[in-house]
Parts: sequence; structure tokens; C-alpha cells
Amino acid sequence: MTDPLESWRDGEAQQAIADYLARVCDTGSEAFVPVPERVAVFDNDGTLWCERPGFVQAYFVIERLQTMIAERPELGKDPVIGHLAAGDIAGAVSVGGLAGAMQAVAASHAGMTADAFAAEAASWLQTATHPRFEVPFRRLVYQPMLELLDLLRANAFRVFVVTGGGVEFVRAVSEQLYGIPPDDVVGSSVELELTRVGTSLQLVRTSQFRGSPNEGAAKAVNIQAHIGRRPIVAGGNTAGDTEMLEYAHTGRHASLCLVIDHDDDEREYAYTGASFTDPGAEPIGQTAARLGWTVVSMAKDWGRVFPTG
Amino acid sequence: MTDPLESWRDGEAQQAIADYLARVCDTGSEAFVPVPERVAVFDNDGTLWCERPGFVQAYFVIERLQTMIAERPELGKDPVIGHLAAGDIAGAVSVGGLAGAMQAVAASHAGMTADAFAAEAASWLQTATHPRFEVPFRRLVYQPMLELLDLLRANAFRVFVVTGGGVEFVRAVSEQLYGIPPDDVVGSSVELELTRVGTSLQLVRTSQFRGSPNEGAAKAVNIQAHIGRRPIVAGGNTAGDTEMLEYAHTGRHASLCLVIDHDDDEREYAYTGASFTDPGAEPIGQTAARLGWTVVSMAKDWGRVFPTG
Repeated sequence: MTDPLESWRDGEAQQAIADYLARVCDTGSEAFVPVPERVAVFDNDGTLWCERPGFVQAYFVIERLQTMIAERPELGKDPVIGHLAAGDIAGAVSVGGLAGAMQAVAASHAGMTADAFAAEAASWLQTATHPRFEVPFRRLVYQPMLELLDLLRANAFRVFVVTGGGVEFVRAVSEQLYGIPPDDVVGSSVELELTRVGTSLQLVRTSQFRGSPNEGAAKAVNIQAHIGRRPIVAGGNTAGDTEMLEYAHTGRHASLCLVIDHDDDEREYAYTGASFTDPGAEPIGQTAARLGWTVVSMAKDWGRVFPTG
Repeated sequence: MTDPLESWRDGEAQQAIADYLARVCDTGSEAFVPVPERVAVFDNDGTLWCERPGFVQAYFVIERLQTMIAERPELGKDPVIGHLAAGDIAGAVSVGGLAGAMQAVAASHAGMTADAFAAEAASWLQTATHPRFEVPFRRLVYQPMLELLDLLRANAFRVFVVTGGGVEFVRAVSEQLYGIPPDDVVGSSVELELTRVGTSLQLVRTSQFRGSPNEGAAKAVNIQAHIGRRPIVAGGNTAGDTEMLEYAHTGRHASLCLVIDHDDDEREYAYTGASFTDPGAEPIGQTAARLGWTVVSMAKDWGRVFPTG
């Protein structure tokens, strides 16, 4: 029999996963969890795929803004849009604040139908290339995490992505990247307007966010709104995932909370897990130590980071 | 081989379903639809179960308000709450408007955790009884629709409930009633607040709606927000379902839109499909005639309405 976690090195993290699954999936175990309650949730950026040097979606938005400015140069005079189009996200935040930068991101595809957006995102992701690794972003998913998702599904878990990124963007490739269908992706989104276009009804993207970004407490709230069950397995890598993990951790069942520690500058990146929307929050590594969560060291626990070939 | 639609009488509606499934599921057909795009959505009240003389959830809320008034009699002096607690929904709407009545409904379980609400709803639904049929409400699901859901699943469809009712209320029994897991229910909801209760994180119901009620255009918007794919099969029974059906109808694939016509006062009820939140909208029977949707006559097309035993 092949090892389902073959890219994981022997160690505490791999052992914690194996022990946990034995505890909750063995009908003779005191911690047994019935199948309908086996819900696993994972952050996307930095947990399932590479988020450095910038979010994949940021590159998508930057290209879009560049196209828009080429067509309507006056747009580039807006300092927030100008910085974003130049790939300077920090600059955009410094002049417009986080809210202003995010507003420009939300507005970047306003007026496009949901169907057209999904097609554009899917198409862009087939070829758009990472600046350092020089392969398509879509190949920079973490092989050990793909194996974990498969192992969870083999143990009758339903696996969901719960991302701070745009739900329509991640859905465009979630099936291809992770085997996760569109309805099992929970994320941030813009408001859509039902609009008659010719003889058909289309959903058209507006420039307004729908509720708050899917980070922090919003992740737990949106898990309930969308999934309707408390997860028992949760994985993340920044303080924006802390509430989601603690929500799983404090349910009535035994839980497995995984924190991906980016400590591998050679094969990927080394950085601490600060929140994008709440930079002052406790880094998730400290929370993990406090609450006894399983920390996954990319350098030590993963024999391989990205899929081969 | 048993007839999968055995409670359906031979007739145009039954034939339209069979013809449609042959067209979209036969790999040799020009209208073939790949499995991941086989999405079916159904309204709940009046489409999958009986909604007369009042919504099932209204009885649940009425009982709750009566309990609240017994504990705090001053609440009953509020004219909207007083009418609702007396079972007089029309009276509550006449003094408080639709918004005021719905606000009282939203507030009826404020402060309760999502877990406690789900447990209370599930428990109530096991025993609460219909005033005319004198059986539990949960037994007043439409047997022909249960057979249709099974037939769709046998043809590799994903089946979702898209209800104007409260999502947490319908989820409490969707698996039991329809074989539909909680995450495949889309509905109206109140805002939840992530709250620390002792050492655990709980989601607590507020008295505020989350967005607008899931009726009319909101159904199409929420289908995209939640499911992320345009349905090809849609069923409803009031003008509050019209946009959902037309959204399915105007996609790029062949679609099947079903309108349940309540024309059977003897075995169920006879009424036209007006919208609850937009009473002036075109009754869905007229829309169906205009757009060529399949009208299901409860009196003529269904050999049986409710399950036996």
C-alpha cells in the first residue's frame, strides 16, 4: 500500500494527522465523529498554494488595471489605481488605505458578467507565470496539502476552501487545482446585480463588496452561513485564519488545527503569519503554541513542496 | 424496473421531465450537459412541502413568541408581536408592514447560538403538527417531488434547496426530509456574531437580517454566491421564484423549469402563486404560460400528494 502522505517527512505533524484520523474515524473510538459531521476547511493563499511575493489574484487584478489604463489613460492618474497597476500594493495602501486599495480591486471587474469573469480568471490561470519560479501559478500548489485533502476525502470528510480571496476567482480553478467543486468554496465577493442582457438574465459584478472581506471572525460566520456545520479540521497560515481554527477547536468534537509555518526561504518563502486585514493581530504561530495546535514546518515536515512535472 | 416517477400520472408534465433528462444526459444528444453543470434548484415552501394555511416556520416562530410573552408579558403589548403570537400574520403586517413583521420574526431567536437554534428547530419539527391534516408538518412533503429529486440525483444532478425561508430552519431537517445536506440549502438568514462563551467560540443570532430576504432576484444572486453555477433545472410555485426559473431558463444549456400549480383543494390547497414579498408581481402561472415552462397540476399530474405511512 502506498503512503497517502508520501511527501510528508516522518515527524510530529505527520503523526498528529495520522493519530487524529484514527481517533475520529474508528467506530470503536471514544472520539468517533459520524460522517455527516466530518467537515474540513482550509484557507487558500499560503495554505494550499504559494502567496508570495504577492497574492496570485493581485497579479490578475494588476494585469486588468493595466489593460483598463491602456484603454482609458485618465484612470492611471488615480493614485491608488496607478500604484496597483504598477504592482506596488504597499504604495496603493499607503495613499488609499487598505479600504481604498481593496475598493480599487473590487472595482477592477465591475460591469463584467459573472460568467465572463469566471472564463477570464480560468483562462488567465492557465498561463500566468510566477515571477521567481517561472512556472504557471497553478502549479505552485503544495503537494503535501493535496495529499492531505485526498486522505481526508478517503476518510469521508467534506473538504471546503475558505479563502480571503475572491470567491469567483478561486472557484474558477478549485476543481482543477484541488478537486473541490465551485459550491465548496467560501470567499470574499462583490455584490452581483441581476440584469437583463438582451433576452437573457445575467449576473453583473458591481464595484461594491458583499459584506466584509472573508478574514478573521468573518471566516467563522461565513462557514456557518455557507456550510451550516462546525468544521472539525481546519488549516491556515495567518492571523486572518485564527478565528476559523479556534471555531473548529472549540466545538464538541475532537479537532485538528494545522498551521502552515513558512520557514523555507530556499524552496518557497520565509515569513510570519500576520493578518492582511488586521496587521496588529497575534501571529498565528503564537496562537498555535498557546492552544496546542499542530504547526507544520515547511522546511522540516515537507519532503517536497510543489508537485513534480 | 420500477417507475422512478411512480406517483406521477402519465401526462405532459411527467413526459416533459423524462424527455428533458433524455436530452441532457444522453452523451449522443446535441443538448448533452456535462455532469459538473447538472445543477437543480428548488424552492421549498409550496414546492417541496405544504405551505398552507401558513408557512411551517411561521408556526415555529409563533410558538417561540408565545413562550417569550409568557416569560416577559410586556413583549405582548408590541402590536406586531402581539398579532404574530396570536397567529394573525395578516394583522401583524397591517400594523407593522411587511418589514416590521419580518423584523419581529428575525428577532424571535436573537441571542440564541446557531447550534441551539438548529437543535430547537430539529426537535420542534419532529412533533409539530399541521392544523388540518393532523400529522407532523415533516410528513407533508410532496411525494412526487421526492421522486423527482431522486431521479435527478440518479442522473448525476446536484440538487439544492433555494428557499425564502430561514436557512438555519430548513437545514435542520433538509437531510431528513429531502436527503439534502445542510450546505446545499440556500436561504434567508440573520446576521451571526462570533462570540466567546466561556472557553468556546459560538455563533450567536442577532435580530438583523443578513442582506435581503432570499426571494425574487435575490434567489438568482444567492445561487451564484453560494453554488457558483447557473442551474439548468429549477422548480418553484410563486412569483418569488420567477427570477430563479428565468435565470435557469436563459443560460446556455437546455433547461427544465417547473411550476407547481396548487389546484387541489381536496388533497391539499388551491391558490395562485403570488409572491409573499412582492404581492403585485405577475403570478408565476402567467409567466410560465408566456415562457413555455412546464406547469405541474397537483390535481391532474400527481397520483398521490403526500407519502403514505
